[in-house]
Amino acid sequence: MPMPSLGAGREFDRIRAVLAALGDVVADAGDDCAFIPPGLGVIALSTDTSVEGVHFRREWLSLEEIGWRAAAGALSDLAAVAAEPIGVLAALVLPDDLGEPETVRLMRGIGDATASVGGKVLGGDLSSGPVLAIGITVIGSCVSPVRRTGAAVGDSLWVTGSLGGACAALLSLQAGALPAPAARAVFARPAPRIHAARWLADRGARAMIDLSDGLAGDAGHLAAASGVRLRIDIGGLPVHPDLVSRVARTGESAVALAAMGGEDYELLVAMPSGFGESDAGEHLHSTGVPLTRIGVVEAGLGVDLTEGGVSVSLRSFDHFT
Amino acid sequence: MPMPSLGAGREFDRIRAVLAALGDVVADAGDDCAFIPPGLGVIALSTDTSVEGVHFRREWLSLEEIGWRAAAGALSDLAAVAAEPIGVLAALVLPDDLGEPETVRLMRGIGDATASVGGKVLGGDLSSGPVLAIGITVIGSCVSPVRRTGAAVGDSLWVTGSLGGACAALLSLQAGALPAPAARAVFARPAPRIHAARWLADRGARAMIDLSDGLAGDAGHLAAASGVRLRIDIGGLPVHPDLVSRVARTGESAVALAAMGGEDYELLVAMPSGFGESDAGEHLHSTGVPLTRIGVVEAGLGVDLTEGGVSVSLRSFDHFT
Repeated sequence: MPMPSLGAGREFDRIRAVLAALGDVVADAGDDCAFIPPGLGVIALSTDTSVEGVHFRREWLSLEEIGWRAAAGALSDLAAVAAEPIGVLAALVLPDDLGEPETVRLMRGIGDATASVGGKVLGGDLSSGPVLAIGITVIGSCVSPVRRTGAAVGDSLWVTGSLGGACAALLSLQAGALPAPAARAVFARPAPRIHAARWLADRGARAMIDLSDGLAGDAGHLAAASGVRLRIDIGGLPVHPDLVSRVARTGESAVALAAMGGEDYELLVAMPSGFGESDAGEHLHSTGVPLTRIGVVEAGLGVDLTEGGVSVSLRSFDHFT
Repeated sequence: MPMPSLGAGREFDRIRAVLAALGDVVADAGDDCAFIPPGLGVIALSTDTSVEGVHFRREWLSLEEIGWRAAAGALSDLAAVAAEPIGVLAALVLPDDLGEPETVRLMRGIGDATASVGGKVLGGDLSSGPVLAIGITVIGSCVSPVRRTGAAVGDSLWVTGSLGGACAALLSLQAGALPAPAARAVFARPAPRIHAARWLADRGARAMIDLSDGLAGDAGHLAAASGVRLRIDIGGLPVHPDLVSRVARTGESAVALAAMGGEDYELLVAMPSGFGESDAGEHLHSTGVPLTRIGVVEAGLGVDLTEGGVSVSLRSFDHFT
């Protein structure tokens, strides 16, 4: 990108340093707005904030990882509607101890996550403040988004990847232990399921949501939006192996934790009844991401979680409880 | 708008309360993304964050005003490129003492500011955190944006409205005094100059920027982006009358403060040489906003501020000094 011309000031020096470090990941900069040309179809937008002490601790992650994780969590909302990323706007609130090098490291993580799914950093905002907070707005395009509203009775329910990896890492970190490497990778550098979502949309996905707050809670939003009942056998969840190992000694239920744990950023999707295991095999082959059947869509309302045929009640993550 | 169907949880109860209070100001909600239909031309985007203790203090403003001011400051970036607002995404970080009623009041202010310029609340995010912060992303459309880059030698420089009203209010508030009502209104409920910007764009505006950090600093960005020198006679600035009264006793220079003070959200615009005082009169008649000629565009680089023919040096607001 052409280096934009900005006037004097330390805030603008810092912006210049970020732009120099990010190079081609920045699309265009230096005006009051970023611009998206016409002709890209429906534009999808979402915003998400990560706050130090709430969503992450600085001692758990590098600044690059904090930036990646904030961006990936927001980009996951584009996956949830099967949109192609165009880019992100990044608003950083920076405490006094984070100077220019630290700002560059945060923005590099944001830029890397965005570039990993083909997007650009389109703009942003730097502000001072008492605590590190990262606001990411994602912008994507789609011909026809997959909404939460289209699940119909008889559809099958599937999840991408595995659940509980982020939870396993968090349990270790909260206990002051080093997480297992694979679980740590899920927690520190989650992969937005953009490619998988596009694949599923092309195969007729009826309704989709990303699991940011955990399956137990997010399934409820999809059920409510579609006006259906989701029956999910948590015994069949693809539990992350590091979560299984982590709870082996404590006797906690790995499947229950996998269903409650948020921030895996996998997708829950309702597929039409003709979609089956051979299609899931094709999905794995094409995207590298497993797809596991976990339930069915029934008449009614809400979510019925069962384990071995018995109903179970699980809570989900809530910012205000 | 149809009330979206969301699952259980206090966070979602709070979202439901906001949606019920805002009514038709919310365009659509309840999915992972907001959507903008195709065919609206170039999409303009910008993001801006307001942080308690940095951009505002709660004891100075009502929660509705804090919301309005945050949204208006961000919407001003759409004015700066002469875009028509489509809407906003609002990301709130809420400390524990701000519950559901307070969230509704903040969002009502954001909704009112957005509706005042014809936009909708398209989506948002609620998070907890140690300090109130409001991240606003604005989305607009335009056929051909007015950039910072187009100022040419011989253009005349104009500002909308008056400068220093927000500064006058801030000086009073910082001194523990009640601001004059008109100055307080500029500070608490600034008006994004959307209509004026569209009018100026239709009359051939070459380059434009909004004065969020103050004329002294923002003029430098326009000069740098256009590769020109701006000669501005600050003696001719349209100083807000409450700033003149405020400094009458202290001997401070009202024009200097008006040139340095940010957050008036007026526009600085370079117009082609044929544009003159009679056009400014038409602007006032059509938009209700005065337009004052303050300088010219010359060959060179940077900004030359003069008062009575003598060069003056003024600093601008900087988040990191």
